Amino acid sequence: MSNFKVLPILDPEAAGAVAPCCPPLTERPLTAEEAEQTARMFKALGDPVRLRLFSLVASHEGGEACVCDISDVGVSQPTVSHHLKKLKEAGLLTSERRGTWVYYRVEPSVLAAMGRLLTSAALN
Amino acid sequence: MSNFKVLPILDPEAAGAVAPCCPPLTERPLTAEEAEQTARMFKALGDPVRLRLFSLVASHEGGEACVCDISDVGVSQPTVSHHLKKLKEAGLLTSERRGTWVYYRVEPSVLAAMGRLLTSAALN
Repeated sequence: MSNFKVLPILDPEAAGAVAPCCPPLTERPLTAEEAEQTARMFKALGDPVRLRLFSLVASHEGGEACVCDISDVGVSQPTVSHHLKKLKEAGLLTSERRGTWVYYRVEPSVLAAMGRLLTSAALN
Repeated sequence: MSNFKVLPILDPEAAGAVAPCCPPLTERPLTAEEAEQTARMFKALGDPVRLRLFSLVASHEGGEACVCDISDVGVSQPTVSHHLKKLKEAGLLTSERRGTWVYYRVEPSVLAAMGRLLTSAALN
């Protein structure tokens, strides 16, 4: 029998977490890998309905919302669910099931990193 | 003859400028119109090659670059031109022809507004 013990490797992407990325845009060009990761987040916000839903969650009481809180965006509840899932996959929202509903909240560290990316660029 | 004089109406969109939009995402949900306008900018940054090109322009000496300055992103010069044009159409870059080349530079006010949108959301 071997004495080796295989330790689990923590894979942040598999765990659903996305490391905030990258230096301010004015500092240096993004690498292909950094651009790949960051573009995924911008793309998730690049759809009007999705962006509106994101602002609904971000501005909702307590900083979280479930599909049951969202009714006035002009799309069906399954479509709302689909978009919220996409925002979660991009690392912009986290979710937690409580009873019947899944509650979504914004991921502040990722948002802050994206904001820094743009704001610092604008200040230089 | 009428004494009325029709004054020209300044239409920022027609002039190529895009008014920075909107309140921080935690303040209130975006309206459909605000989301439409803002999503266009996020969408433009939602492509890895385009985001990388954008960072190349933003970090280039003097804050501007032409296609002639860009060579190492793994796509052809016509593709680079196409992407820079898309970024301009989204209101993220401005351009100026000087001799043979068109020089692109980042639009700081728009970037700052996008950064504020996200950073403020993260701070609340």
